[in-house]
Parts: sequence; C-alpha cells; structure tokens
Amino acid sequence: MEIAIPLFDGFTTLDAMGPFQVLSALPGAHARFLATEAGPVLSDNRMLTVMAEGCYEDVPHPEVLVVPGGPGTRALLDDERVLDWVRSAHASSRYTTSVCTGSLVLAAAGLLEGVEATTHWRSRDELGSLGARPIPERVVERGRVITAAGVSAGIDMALRLAELIAGAQMAQAIQLNIEYDPQPPFDSGSPEKAPDDVIALVRGVEADSERPRG
Amino acid sequence: MEIAIPLFDGFTTLDAMGPFQVLSALPGAHARFLATEAGPVLSDNRMLTVMAEGCYEDVPHPEVLVVPGGPGTRALLDDERVLDWVRSAHASSRYTTSVCTGSLVLAAAGLLEGVEATTHWRSRDELGSLGARPIPERVVERGRVITAAGVSAGIDMALRLAELIAGAQMAQAIQLNIEYDPQPPFDSGSPEKAPDDVIALVRGVEADSERPRG
Repeated sequence: MEIAIPLFDGFTTLDAMGPFQVLSALPGAHARFLATEAGPVLSDNRMLTVMAEGCYEDVPHPEVLVVPGGPGTRALLDDERVLDWVRSAHASSRYTTSVCTGSLVLAAAGLLEGVEATTHWRSRDELGSLGARPIPERVVERGRVITAAGVSAGIDMALRLAELIAGAQMAQAIQLNIEYDPQPPFDSGSPEKAPDDVIALVRGVEADSERPRG
Repeated sequence: MEIAIPLFDGFTTLDAMGPFQVLSALPGAHARFLATEAGPVLSDNRMLTVMAEGCYEDVPHPEVLVVPGGPGTRALLDDERVLDWVRSAHASSRYTTSVCTGSLVLAAAGLLEGVEATTHWRSRDELGSLGARPIPERVVERGRVITAAGVSAGIDMALRLAELIAGAQMAQAIQLNIEYDPQPPFDSGSPEKAPDDVIALVRGVEADSERPRG
C-alpha cells in the first residue's frame, strides 16, 4: 500500500511524523516522503532535514495521501504543480488526508469546496476563505477525505485511518506498540481549554522571542 | 540552549520527533540531530532518512540530551564510543533524558544503576538486566534524569521538560501550539488497558506479516 507524504520547505515535523509512525506500521505499508525533487527538505524551524526519496510525480496514484502542514504550505497555495498532483492523486486515492494547515493545500486544490474540514485552530478563517467549511473538531471525516487539527492531531487521525484500512484490532495494536496512552502534564491543548494568558502568548507577534516557535 | 538528539541506524521516528517538536519550540533552543558522522541516518522501518548535522562529539556539552529508542539501540549497548559520549554529556548536562528503549543506552552507560526508570513496556526486563529499576510509569523523573515510556511518551516527557526549563506558561503555550489535546479513537495505549488479543498481536513473532511493524 503506497502512502505518499509530500514534504516542502517549511513543513512542521510532527504533522508528517505522527501519521508516518502510525501508518508505516500497517502490514504491507510503503510510506514515501516526496518533494519537488529527491533530496533534502528543511522543516519550519530549520533544525531538521529529511531526505525526500523522490518527487511528487514519482507516486501518481498513492492509496493514501497525507498532506502535512506548516508555514511552508502558504507557498503551495498557488503552486499549480503541487495542486495538480494533489488533484490527480485524490482522483484515484482511497483516502486523502491532511494534518494542520495541510488542509489549506487540499482546499486550494479544490477538494474541500463546501466541505466540512479542520485545521490548526489559528488557521480556521484562512481555511474558510479557501472554500471549506471549518469546524473546530480534532478529526473530521467526510467520505474519503479526512482532515486533522493542528500538529499532534495527525496521530489520532492516523489511528482512525489505520482502523479504516486494517480494522480495529490492528489499529489498537499499533496504538499499543507506540504506547499512545497520552498523559500530558497540562490540559491546554486547545483554545477552548487553555488559559487566556497562554492563548495570548501563542497569538503574540512573530518577532517576540519569548513566544514558542514553530 | 543546545539540545542533542543522537540518532543511529534503526531509531524509531516518533521517539526522536515528538520531543524534537516540543523542545525545539523553546525560546533560544538549538536542537541538533547527531550520529556517528554527519549525513543520512535510516529509521527502524527504513522508510525515513534524517540528515544528522554532525557527529556526537561535535556537541560534547549539551544542556539537554534526548536519547531516542528503537531496535537500533541494541547495537549501542556495547559501543564504547557512544557510551563514553553519553557519560561525558551527562556529566555536564542540565537534563539527561530518554524515550522508549533509549533508556537501555542510559543504563548501559551506567547512568541508571539502581535508579527507577521507564522504557517501552516490552523492554522492562531488559532495562532491569542493565541495572536500572524499571517501573511501569509513562514519565519517570529522578533528579535530572528523566525517562519516558514507549515512543509517543516522549511528547509528554518533553512537555514536562519544557516546564522545568521555561516554566508552566511556556510549556502550556507549546502544548497549545501543537494542539496536543489527545483524542485517540481507542483506549489501548498500554498493556494495562489493551484487550488481550491486541497484546497477543503485538507480542507476536517478528516474522508474522500480520503484526504491526516498528
């Protein structure tokens, strides 16, 4: 089973690696990182370099497409080469998915016109401006299009996808193997739950060195 | 703040990338992937290649050391070059941490002699045989040594570490920025919670193609 994960300059690490960890564990899975050309691709914070094993067009018909997000998605929204490949991959895919602002790319490709979808909580309006109907849920499944909220939500999305592809027992086995029994030390993982001062800190100006990066 | 993440052939992706996503967001953080030499390093399932930016010895005194796990750790347990570097890095580090079977490396380096620590649930006995006192907890903090359980537990560990380094507000802001509000579709993330048939599937023989990989 071919799983295509398109990378691009400025992708967010966990957006790609969370689903990769889960989906690559499926029996028979072949997960491939792709880019404009084979070779090194830099993450958003410039601290991680992943080697793309080929270019997008090397995998024209993946069974599963996982589009990660990150600041680098913005440059893709009018990149017809990428959008054409996404449209074409979607035409024959079994599942077309995104994590975080990866949904902006699906929307720009015209796949989310009037469709309910999710994205990083800070990008909901932007997703709406591209024709989708943003809803504040962690994983949104509409037919064979599945979108996940920000960054870590890709893990939850991928476990659901594993269930759809290989059944609940296999999805649970993968969850057990990655010991995904989350126990975050705080309960501030969504704007509905985080304290106001924490939300303000994240919304702070880009230039503020006291703001978390990424 | 230098954060050293040693990679090696056969590391498990999320073990490294979960803490990387969290810790690299700390203001002033410089997270570096290291290996025996600068260049490509293959993950356990051979589907991901990460570029190490330097060799271990290029960062002799990291403030934070994060040792990921994976099948590749076994080759490190008698690799004196790696163990010497770990010992030396620990001597001056602010925090020395591991994810999954990364704790086996800390133990082999002699850092966990008689110390309570955690690891992947399938490797608890092996951790004990290396002199540590394995306990079935997700994150174990003993002084400046912090060990995390399997794979995804590194995210929880790193958020606690972010709190220790930069305070609760910053840790919460990072959690909000990665939208870490986990909603796994199943509750099978630990052997205490997973159904027996799922545990049996994960414990199945290596050669069984129906077993999840990784």
